[in-house]
Amino acid sequence: MKRFYLQARVLYDFEGQPGTSELSITTGEILNVTSKDVGEGWWEGSNQRGLSGIFPAAYVEAIVQTYNVPPAMPPPPLPQIYVEENTAPVIQQQQSQYDDDWDDDWDDDVSEVNPASHANAAPGGRSNSDVGSALDVNLAGLKLGDGKGTVRKNLNRFSHFVKTGGEAYILGASKVTATDSDYIHIIETNDGITWAPNPQPYSCVVASPKKESKLKGLKSFIAYQLTPSLNNIQVSRRYKHFDWLHERLVEKFCIIPIPPLPDKQISGRYEEQFIERRRLQLQSFVSRVSNHPILSRSDVWLHFLTCTDAKRWKSGKRKAEKDEVIGAAIFSVVQVPEKALDPLQLDSQTEAFGRFVQSFDTAVRTMQSNFAEQVKRQQGPYKRDYQRIGQSFRTLSTAMELLETAPLTRALAHTADTYDQIALLCEDQPRLDFEPMGDLLHDYRGLLASFPDIITVHKGALQKRRELERSATEGKTESNVVIRAQQRTDVVSYTLLAEMSYFHQERVRDYNAAAKIFLQEQIAYYQKIVDHLQSTLSQYKDV
Amino acid sequence: MKRFYLQARVLYDFEGQPGTSELSITTGEILNVTSKDVGEGWWEGSNQRGLSGIFPAAYVEAIVQTYNVPPAMPPPPLPQIYVEENTAPVIQQQQSQYDDDWDDDWDDDVSEVNPASHANAAPGGRSNSDVGSALDVNLAGLKLGDGKGTVRKNLNRFSHFVKTGGEAYILGASKVTATDSDYIHIIETNDGITWAPNPQPYSCVVASPKKESKLKGLKSFIAYQLTPSLNNIQVSRRYKHFDWLHERLVEKFCIIPIPPLPDKQISGRYEEQFIERRRLQLQSFVSRVSNHPILSRSDVWLHFLTCTDAKRWKSGKRKAEKDEVIGAAIFSVVQVPEKALDPLQLDSQTEAFGRFVQSFDTAVRTMQSNFAEQVKRQQGPYKRDYQRIGQSFRTLSTAMELLETAPLTRALAHTADTYDQIALLCEDQPRLDFEPMGDLLHDYRGLLASFPDIITVHKGALQKRRELERSATEGKTESNVVIRAQQRTDVVSYTLLAEMSYFHQERVRDYNAAAKIFLQEQIAYYQKIVDHLQSTLSQYKDV
Repeated sequence: MKRFYLQARVLYDFEGQPGTSELSITTGEILNVTSKDVGEGWWEGSNQRGLSGIFPAAYVEAIVQTYNVPPAMPPPPLPQIYVEENTAPVIQQQQSQYDDDWDDDWDDDVSEVNPASHANAAPGGRSNSDVGSALDVNLAGLKLGDGKGTVRKNLNRFSHFVKTGGEAYILGASKVTATDSDYIHIIETNDGITWAPNPQPYSCVVASPKKESKLKGLKSFIAYQLTPSLNNIQVSRRYKHFDWLHERLVEKFCIIPIPPLPDKQISGRYEEQFIERRRLQLQSFVSRVSNHPILSRSDVWLHFLTCTDAKRWKSGKRKAEKDEVIGAAIFSVVQVPEKALDPLQLDSQTEAFGRFVQSFDTAVRTMQSNFAEQVKRQQGPYKRDYQRIGQSFRTLSTAMELLETAPLTRALAHTADTYDQIALLCEDQPRLDFEPMGDLLHDYRGLLASFPDIITVHKGALQKRRELERSATEGKTESNVVIRAQQRTDVVSYTLLAEMSYFHQERVRDYNAAAKIFLQEQIAYYQKIVDHLQSTLSQYKDV
Repeated sequence: MKRFYLQARVLYDFEGQPGTSELSITTGEILNVTSKDVGEGWWEGSNQRGLSGIFPAAYVEAIVQTYNVPPAMPPPPLPQIYVEENTAPVIQQQQSQYDDDWDDDWDDDVSEVNPASHANAAPGGRSNSDVGSALDVNLAGLKLGDGKGTVRKNLNRFSHFVKTGGEAYILGASKVTATDSDYIHIIETNDGITWAPNPQPYSCVVASPKKESKLKGLKSFIAYQLTPSLNNIQVSRRYKHFDWLHERLVEKFCIIPIPPLPDKQISGRYEEQFIERRRLQLQSFVSRVSNHPILSRSDVWLHFLTCTDAKRWKSGKRKAEKDEVIGAAIFSVVQVPEKALDPLQLDSQTEAFGRFVQSFDTAVRTMQSNFAEQVKRQQGPYKRDYQRIGQSFRTLSTAMELLETAPLTRALAHTADTYDQIALLCEDQPRLDFEPMGDLLHDYRGLLASFPDIITVHKGALQKRRELERSATEGKTESNVVIRAQQRTDVVSYTLLAEMSYFHQERVRDYNAAAKIFLQEQIAYYQKIVDHLQSTLSQYKDV
């Protein structure tokens, strides 16, 4: 018999206000959660140094811990010995479900679960899948996703590269059977080294999320309708299909950061808003893959995007899972310009890029955490502050109405209503400015998390090349082996340069557009406040 | 030898957030203050039930308590017995200083004292006047005054009325020597019963506050320049002159709420802003007295407003202090219409007015406390939130600049600057909207605090009249005595009706104007934000 208790891993630093009960927390720290009922987005808990206090729930990630309780014995007296387990079983369970079913029973994408009933359920007697749900519930407070699920997978890329024969490739020892469609082309243009553009560019619309259910409504999920401009044929995909696809892309393209999926979440109370936001996040994923010169042409993606037949789906699925051109093998199918690259220049270029990635990642995290905080501020304190101003005018109007209903009392009541309306605007506004920007930041955290591994792959290749060059000067290696190794490391370098170039172009486009939309929505928000206030000002007559 | 410790009297209810270290406090409660160094406008302390926590400093009034320490003995071990003393000595000291000096050494209006050095000074060895300063320091945080000083004086009005012969007046036993200028006229117009308007209405400008000092700069004070349109001759007055005048007016006009003075305060860090606000508050006081049909014509006020000669100042001062037409005696000089009033109608009218006053007072307090809170929110958390948005854009710009200084990095930096500017706007804004409204609320708390006593005076008169009427039906009192008593209670009623009518007219005018100004400034504020954002939006180019 297992029981559960809750810990939390700190995702962002938070500095508690001195003199309050706020607990300062540091990224990576593990906290014991003593209460999730503090309200207002706060949890209570203690750190390893025994300090306890409250902290923002959105700054941590929940870890459900279990400890064993012998089933036949009464519960042992406190203090109990906790046996720590990580959440790996949950993930394994998910993977074991990637079977050939077109539409199996595993519906973790959106469940109709009352979060409160899960969060407060008595410990004990839960199945493993319950732990998964409870974990989702705990993450539901996270309005701006943190890209964590995806990041975790990407962290295995380098070892995956080694496992799949990175060194063997440089040494020319790997053999790959590739089809024509597997080939990847890199060209040199006026803009530098880039992926060859997709000759048949297309886009894809994610629309009409439909809530579907089965097992007489016991299980429900959302199906999203994807329509690529390639063929204008609509396909219906669920989150689990996206998840399977994502795993294939990560496995196959160790040289390209795969855009992250939105985090798994329980829909919560504002279901319609949640589903709409999820649709926008999946649209962003689909657009990023569709726009990418290489990803957009990959077999597994095209299968995902166009297959409408259950039987073909199964065979395409099996084929993708058996794909041999994955990991380091991908370099065997990359066609690069003939020009040899300067390893010294590459060193400084990739080092600068590495510094940029780190600094950009920090900036993205900072903004993500600040914006997430701002969402909570507007939906909590700011909203209440506007309501309090409204209430001030209302009590004034009500008091004066004891004597007479005059133009002034009506105007004051109108002003009270106006501030109440502004309070609602303020609560709703993040949906239009801070949250869309938060979604972009989520995407970039996922993308940026891939680069350290990609850079490491490249560094490893350059290092191997140098070893061989040294070995050749000592006469231990034949020069034609070295020349072939140099050509092969150039292939690795060319892929990095092409993807760097693509990333920069996307980055400028994305942030320019996102900042503009953010500012436009901020302007619209403050303009609406001005309009409301002007309308209530006109209620006051000259006395 | 005396030592000091700090208590605080709760002025407004405050409900602490559950799960934080905030302490819920109730109006009237006495707290022991354990720390004023919490920051952000919070103090720490404990209540009578032993609960401790932090609470907003602006919600309490400081009380400096002293306990005696025998000078020759070592300090006794804790716990010590505290001998409570109220702040009365400070006030007595002030009054004892109202001597005939044109310009004496008593300069409590504005002192150049570093609040920190006072607040943190070690206890012991202070003179009484130091206690006064310390008290002022503690009140300096109170941006929206609470009218307390004035209210305290007004609370003695009813007993003052009795002492000065209210009953004797009704019974026709009081004799008063009055001059022509003392007479007060009440008339009936289409608008009802009102004070006869001032035949020579005038206004008065309070301007050019000048910082002056003496004793080689040891003492400094602010002199305000008053110019009445009566004669266009400027007089210079200090806070202590206002204070002396205020006391005379309260003493003389038991039937009229005297507008309150601004609270005594230490100027604090933002001296210029403080002096300007004090000027506006004194302007409000002067305008209210100048506009009042009765107050504006009183000898003591005209003496204050026009006397430019030190000798005549002294004699006028003495004359005012010896005035016999004060308290209940004022009724002897009131000329009313002949028409007898209906006591039953008066009962219901004054009862309704009493309910209104109570409800209005609650509304004014609510708004005052909400607005004071809003000032703190904008100058603290809101400002920081805008800065945090700015910082998010700045880190993004800085990270991207590692690669290149492009139009996007410049635009992002501009957006960062813009939010920093908005943060400053946000901090400064209360000066233009919430604080002026707070000043009006301060005035009305002072005015409203007078009415319960005025209503009690009136009730007492009606009661006396009924006693005499009953006594007459029993043949114990002569009917002409009753008739004269009825006429005299009508005089009391007429004054109440006249002042009620004046108060309502002012109330509508004041709140209508204040709400308009408040909304205009709010509009201007949000419009400025829109303008700033539009300007930064234009920095983003199409990519």
